[in-house]
Amino acid sequence: MNPSPILMSPVAHVHSARTEMTDDNWGEVISKIVLDDQFPEEAFQGISDFSHLEIVFYFHLAPAEEICTGARHPRGNKNWPETGIFAQRGKARPNKIGLCIVELLEHRGRVLYVRGLDAIAGTPVLDIKPVMQEFLPRTKISQPDWSKELMKNYW
Amino acid sequence: MNPSPILMSPVAHVHSARTEMTDDNWGEVISKIVLDDQFPEEAFQGISDFSHLEIVFYFHLAPAEEICTGARHPRGNKNWPETGIFAQRGKARPNKIGLCIVELLEHRGRVLYVRGLDAIAGTPVLDIKPVMQEFLPRTKISQPDWSKELMKNYW
Repeated sequence: MNPSPILMSPVAHVHSARTEMTDDNWGEVISKIVLDDQFPEEAFQGISDFSHLEIVFYFHLAPAEEICTGARHPRGNKNWPETGIFAQRGKARPNKIGLCIVELLEHRGRVLYVRGLDAIAGTPVLDIKPVMQEFLPRTKISQPDWSKELMKNYW
Repeated sequence: MNPSPILMSPVAHVHSARTEMTDDNWGEVISKIVLDDQFPEEAFQGISDFSHLEIVFYFHLAPAEEICTGARHPRGNKNWPETGIFAQRGKARPNKIGLCIVELLEHRGRVLYVRGLDAIAGTPVLDIKPVMQEFLPRTKISQPDWSKELMKNYW
């Protein structure tokens, strides 16, 4: 099948004190997600009945020339195995989509206050979905050791 | 901020016996995710070290004129409260992004065999990420009753 381009528009933007795309210590970051003007406030109606949200965002600052389409060492760390881009979560990936589950702290009109979003100020948000228990893994998870090491100081 | 359009291309496509966008009974569906030609096979290298994957896909058949940008009753069910589109996971949403955690059954070259993907045959895949325990919710989840009712026969 031929790749047919798909056009997306931001639905919201991230406001945060964090402006650098550094790797670690995102757990206590509190961000505002502000709904874009083309949407009515009702787009967030009832959202605070959920404790957690999935934020789909766009790594807008990831340079096109750094995008990996094959395999690489996660974070460039040669102690970790060369791994396919779809077997890791790094930002320099095709379509530059980021995905993060956050805690919803407060909903006020067009603004969501969230904890633990690993996206910097100005990041375009492509979608927001409520976390439902039923959509989380229903069988036991396993993952390689390198990924546990990589995540050690992430939050 | 003005919405600046973002261009995406599929990275893979879904092959499945399921061709209808019906609501329920996705749990036992086994699908193939086939990597598109522009990527080398190495893009999947090491992926079977993970038991679960997050599939970001595009609801390509959701009609533009049905997209909800405000609030609606989930599944059109008046017994459930009118809810903002970003407080539900329905497909008729801005940017038409679908998100699903699946079990990886087998990786063979350019093909992933997965269980529980709620996407029909021909669906463009925008991204594939490995599930890491550390990216799942780190505090207790809560969600409204309507969402539990809606999910009753989903898997």
